[in-house]
This record gives sequence, C-alpha cells and structure tokens, in this order.
Amino acid sequence: MTDFSAWSQGCQTRIENVLAGHLPPADIAPQRLHEAMRYAALGGGKRVRPLLVFAAGEVTGAGVERLQHVAAAVELIHVYSLVHDDMPAMDDDALRRGKPTVHVQFDEATALLVGDALQSLAFEILSGQPLAVDAGTQLRMAQLLAQAAGSRGMAGGQAIDLASVGKPLDLAELEFMHIHKTGALIRASVLLGAQCGTLNEATEAALDHYAKCIGLAFQVVDDVLDAEAPTATLGKTAGKDAAANKPTYVSLLGAARARELALELRADAHKSLTGLGAPAERLRELADFVVERTF
Amino acid sequence: MTDFSAWSQGCQTRIENVLAGHLPPADIAPQRLHEAMRYAALGGGKRVRPLLVFAAGEVTGAGVERLQHVAAAVELIHVYSLVHDDMPAMDDDALRRGKPTVHVQFDEATALLVGDALQSLAFEILSGQPLAVDAGTQLRMAQLLAQAAGSRGMAGGQAIDLASVGKPLDLAELEFMHIHKTGALIRASVLLGAQCGTLNEATEAALDHYAKCIGLAFQVVDDVLDAEAPTATLGKTAGKDAAANKPTYVSLLGAARARELALELRADAHKSLTGLGAPAERLRELADFVVERTF
Repeated sequence: MTDFSAWSQGCQTRIENVLAGHLPPADIAPQRLHEAMRYAALGGGKRVRPLLVFAAGEVTGAGVERLQHVAAAVELIHVYSLVHDDMPAMDDDALRRGKPTVHVQFDEATALLVGDALQSLAFEILSGQPLAVDAGTQLRMAQLLAQAAGSRGMAGGQAIDLASVGKPLDLAELEFMHIHKTGALIRASVLLGAQCGTLNEATEAALDHYAKCIGLAFQVVDDVLDAEAPTATLGKTAGKDAAANKPTYVSLLGAARARELALELRADAHKSLTGLGAPAERLRELADFVVERTF
Repeated sequence: MTDFSAWSQGCQTRIENVLAGHLPPADIAPQRLHEAMRYAALGGGKRVRPLLVFAAGEVTGAGVERLQHVAAAVELIHVYSLVHDDMPAMDDDALRRGKPTVHVQFDEATALLVGDALQSLAFEILSGQPLAVDAGTQLRMAQLLAQAAGSRGMAGGQAIDLASVGKPLDLAELEFMHIHKTGALIRASVLLGAQCGTLNEATEAALDHYAKCIGLAFQVVDDVLDAEAPTATLGKTAGKDAAANKPTYVSLLGAARARELALELRADAHKSLTGLGAPAERLRELADFVVERTF
C-alpha cells in the first residue's frame, strides 16, 4: 500500500484530469464563460471531497473509473458554492486558492453564471454514464447530491451563515449551521463514493457516522486555521470570521478547546470505521489529514 | 376535449400545487430562504414550459402523475434563471411577474441562494421518484435537463447575451444566442414530457423540430412585446432591450418582419406535428398561444 501522501497526490492528479475532460474547452462558445469555469475548477484546492469519494469507494470495492466521475460531480458542487460565496453579495472575498476570485478575475455576472453552470455540469456528469450497479441506484445518488446541495443542505447552510453575522449563536446553532453548510456535501461525498460499489446497510450506517464526524471536524479545524494561520498558507483571506464578527468554534470555545474537539471528533470517526477493516485505511488517514492539516 | 383555455388553466393550477408541495415550507429552517424560494416560484408566470411538458406527454400517452413532476423540475430551472438574471450584476431588474424581484423583495445574497437552491431542487425532483418507463430513461432525462440548463444551454445563452450588449450581432448570431438562452429549456420541456411516455425515434425527431421552431418563435414574440407592450401588461419592465442597446429581432428585422417570422415559425411547428394526429392537438394550440400571446 502506497503511503497517504502518494495516494492523495495520485487522486488529485486524476481528479484534475477528469475535471479538465468534463469542463467544456475554453475555445468553445461561450468562450469567456468556459474559460472562467475552468479557472474556477482547475489547478487548486485540497480536493478533500474527491479524496473522500475515492477512499469510501475502497470500502465497497468500487472502481476508480466510476469513482472519478462521482468525485468530479461533488467537487464541482463545492467549487460552484465557493464562486458564489466569494461574490460581493455574500462574503465579498478577493482571494481563493491563492488566486483572485472569479468575480475579480472576470466579473460578477460571469461569476454568477460560472456557479450556475458548474452546478448543472455536476448533475450532467452524475447522470451521464453508468456509475453504479444499476440505474435506479444512480438516480438515488443524483437525488442525494441534489439534497446535499440544496436548501436543506449546503445552500441552506449558507443562508443560515448569512443570517448569523453579528448574532450570538450558541454551540447547538453553530453546529446546525455547519451540518448544512459543510457537513451535507462531505457526507454526500462519502456515501456517493460508497454507493459506486456494493454497499450494505451496516456499512452505510458506519460511513454515515464517520462522515458526520469528519464534516464537523473539518469545520472546527477551518475555524482554528482562520483564526491562526496566515493568509499566504491558507490561499484565502485569513481572519475573515473575526473581522465579520461571525460566530465560530474558536469564538465560542476558545482555540485550545476547539483543537481538542477536533481530536475527539477524529477519534469518533476512527471508531466508526472499526468494523470495516483494512479497506477503510484511507478513510482513517483522511480523518487524520482533515484534523492535522495546516491549510 | 376541453378548450385550450380550460386545459391550460387546469395545468397551471396543477403545476402551482405540485410546486407548492415540492418547495420546502416557509416555516422550516432556513425560513427566510424557503420563504424567498416560494415567493420566486409560486403565484405567477405563464408556465409555458410546464404546458409544453403536459402537451408533449399527451403525444406519448404519459400520465399527468409523472408529467407534473417533470413540469415542476423544468419550471424551477426557468425560475432560478429569472431570479439570477434579474440581479444587479446581470439585468438589474426590479419587476418580475408583476411583483418586486427577489433581490428587491429580500436581498441580493438571498436571491443568489434562491436561484442556487431552486436548481438543486429541480434535480432532486427529477431523480426523486419514478417518472419514466425505467430508471435508465429517467437518468437520460436528468442528463438532458442538465445539458439544457448548463453552459452549452441556458446559462451559456445568458453569457452570450451579456457579451452582446452594444455589439452589432447579425441574425445568425442572434439566433445562436436564443437557441441557447431560451430554446434549450423549451426543447427540453417538450422532449422530457414526451420521454415520460412511450417515445419512438420518428416522434422524437418531429417533436425536436417542433420545439426548435416554437423556441425561436417564443423569443421573436418576446422581442416584439418588449418593444411594443406596456409594462403593466407584461408584468416585467418593458422596453428593456432597446434601453440596454441589445440586439433583438425587432432591432434587426423591424417589428413587421419579426411578426411575420413568428408566423412562419408557427407554420413550421404545425407542419412538424402533421404525422402525430389528434394527440398533438395541445402542442398545436400551444404554438398558437406562443405566437398570439400579448404578455
């Protein structure tokens, strides 16, 4: 078994290539939109969600030929949300993945359409070729992704986030927000990867619990990094949350307790994988990666 | 057979109810987002695309129990595009379907998320229950809707539209824009409705041609109305295109020739239905409606 670093780099190269293949070429009309879609989606990011898709697929014996398309669909939903989230009407951010954000590099109207078209492309990919044992399973996968992206998932989480600025949220409310904003798509990544293979109910329940733990851990660590890491390391503007007076795990718990909570969530994530044996090793390593990352 | 007016009113009532059922209740969190989604999607519009779904389904013997969900999905894609298109970064419009636009009634961030979440909901509906003879057909339906919505369909058409402001487009370029911006989703409405039933290749080809004709006719008439009808009748700001110095069929051809072109496209649409007999009567009437409408 290759080490985690080599494995994740392999996945990242693969997802980059698959995305490059699915995104329309920049020389096909409308050129500027296609150029901006490629600018937004290619050449950056940790690709945490694709890594989760690949790792979950190992548990259920799914082939990378299927997983790579599911990973691309999930990543495109994530990228579209970043593009819209960075716009002036939302977080108004100028830097993403170390580059100017799409509305800065292009313009606001293009950023709006880039996000819209990336979401469509995600569903085009997820319905465009056989990715599961049968078409019925694949339809349920599309439904899961749509739910995770929509108003009771990611988009809903962003609405709650917007409404929370300057408000004294308690820990339960903060968790409710993040379960939607970040957690829903991370959960979908794990479950969709697993659904590309042969998945039984017990495994699905274990993976679901794993996904919920690392979804929250991911956000807790994000808050710690936003408070402590420099912008150059993050590739996005640091200290944003405090500047916006947004409630975070750090503002509610303090940095020390937030770091402790991340470790507890990792332990819980690891525990949920106990029954899955060796094929779950990448998911274990990913839980470590999510908690130990510095960017 | 009921007359067209009674039939279309029946469809409109049905689609309103189905949309109301699919849209999350306004008292479920995030409340403001759900309230705004309902504000955007309910209580208005000609529902031309749902009517096309229902009418095309009559040709292939599809039941309304299936068609109504497909109609809802297509209409939600249309509504999301209106919400985003009205935003300040795009057309910056304050009036839609006789009401303040979503970003005016709520705020820009909410309008952005409303559009995003309505698109997700469309795909959730289209993958959420059996709507075709088998799951494989239904997956292809989801793929068709995604393509029609995306950068090589509707979103791409809006990008071309934006790039065209103040530019001297010729007729071929104008048609290229509208085939994307309006035509793709109208074509998808017809084909998706038909795919809910039993569709053979000859019928599909005839419907495809019909859809392309009325898609263009719809836009030609839109341009005539924008130039000639009062705002109160349209329910949206009239005279926008001329004010924005946008090329239209009226600016390129003059109003008289534009009206003639719409009639020619209707004749072509009717002709393509010749072999389909009585079940295509609603589609014939819809071609009349599209060309003769005054709003």
